[in-house]
Amino acid sequence: MTHPFDSAVALEQGGEHTATGATHPAYANMVGPFGGITAAVMLRAVEVQPDRIGEPVSLTVNFTAPIADGGYEILTRCVRTNRTNQHWIVELTQDDEVKTTATAVFGIRRDTWSDAQAEMPAVPGPHSVAPAEGSGFVKWIDNYDMRFVVGSLPGIGAEPSPSSVSTLWVRDRPPRPLDFASLAAICDVFYPRVFLRLARPVPAGTISMTTYFHVTGDDLAAHGDDYVLATTEARRFTRGYFDQTSQLFSPTGALMASSHQIVYYKA
Amino acid sequence: MTHPFDSAVALEQGGEHTATGATHPAYANMVGPFGGITAAVMLRAVEVQPDRIGEPVSLTVNFTAPIADGGYEILTRCVRTNRTNQHWIVELTQDDEVKTTATAVFGIRRDTWSDAQAEMPAVPGPHSVAPAEGSGFVKWIDNYDMRFVVGSLPGIGAEPSPSSVSTLWVRDRPPRPLDFASLAAICDVFYPRVFLRLARPVPAGTISMTTYFHVTGDDLAAHGDDYVLATTEARRFTRGYFDQTSQLFSPTGALMASSHQIVYYKA
Repeated sequence: MTHPFDSAVALEQGGEHTATGATHPAYANMVGPFGGITAAVMLRAVEVQPDRIGEPVSLTVNFTAPIADGGYEILTRCVRTNRTNQHWIVELTQDDEVKTTATAVFGIRRDTWSDAQAEMPAVPGPHSVAPAEGSGFVKWIDNYDMRFVVGSLPGIGAEPSPSSVSTLWVRDRPPRPLDFASLAAICDVFYPRVFLRLARPVPAGTISMTTYFHVTGDDLAAHGDDYVLATTEARRFTRGYFDQTSQLFSPTGALMASSHQIVYYKA
Repeated sequence: MTHPFDSAVALEQGGEHTATGATHPAYANMVGPFGGITAAVMLRAVEVQPDRIGEPVSLTVNFTAPIADGGYEILTRCVRTNRTNQHWIVELTQDDEVKTTATAVFGIRRDTWSDAQAEMPAVPGPHSVAPAEGSGFVKWIDNYDMRFVVGSLPGIGAEPSPSSVSTLWVRDRPPRPLDFASLAAICDVFYPRVFLRLARPVPAGTISMTTYFHVTGDDLAAHGDDYVLATTEARRFTRGYFDQTSQLFSPTGALMASSHQIVYYKA
């Protein structure tokens, strides 16, 4: 049986550097699809190019307009190939309207001095934390097994939180071996930080999201379908836009990805 | 007299959405220009478009290949205009080779609930910290008055640092009223974190840089030519790429910009 994630990011190759895909009902958000699945599709569109070199290093996705339910076309353009890295521009359109743009850097990694600077927060293991209950609110959440250590979605009667931090164990539901595309999607699983601060949902949506990948394909193969520890916090909410900065760790404490986004809100 | 920064980011408008500019010797780096001045040029190229709405919210700059000394052409494309924001793609070329790409989001800000989450590090004021001496190493550094509180460029005989943090007061030299373009440039004033960790320079260069702006034009006017407190740290160095994440504060403690980059290195 095909995992819903694989169905949602499936692309049919058209002419050179063009492909078609379609939104998947399992990943529907309030308006249009879950941003994480769109990020995954934009990355996958580059991954499948025959002239692509290396593995993902950096991905910036700009959500220009809501994607309507149904089909879309993706145009990938290789802007530059260097000896050890490659730059891409990706555009997702529906009826010739640009709905999402992305830039991606792929690179060939080499053995050299390496070191972690970020430290994983001290938390109980995923099996010691209760899974969050489905919200019934948006469809895509059902595709993730989320276990909040701190900062779960505020319920009715919750108090505003002075902190903007959420930390959770998360993996695909049903479990699926992690790959670059699903890691890119998981970087967007956090609900908007403004909900936590105000203890209520308000209109909010990611405008631009940038992810830096710190793992190789071999690291991902070793990780398998295990949980990822995902933590995020906001830095400033100001006049309709806030940023949030996130880190995703393997259970062994290795930083797998750093991800940042700027979010529109109306409080 | 024209400030060198203004000369360096000057553009001559050509046809619709095209402009020409040139590298400026005062902002030369080891190879090509200082990345910050290129980021400033990419932002300025959008700012001057007659159909641009709002002020900068987000800017991602991808350094695809070294810019040669001399002229360049910049193509800006408005991908999407929404009610309160606008998405742009920018490409800088020399002889039809793409040397830099960028995506930018501009937005109209509204009064709504706002709050700072990030706190400025407790540091002495800029006039209590000695200015860094010119390196003689790269030209562009002379255009900045940098006063390191921690993490100055390691000199000969320095010990490797377990920390990747640098914090400094910085402003243009000679002083110049801060605007979005110069703020975008200052987000790149940090030398590569790997130099600090290893206590020696190694080949390194920014590949992609994303900045989120938290200020309005009015905030910048109030700031004038005062210092900015800039702080940065790395999260993970792994097999040839590391990321660094930065925050720029006004002297009154307001977060003016959050900035992130992924850097190539060879240790």
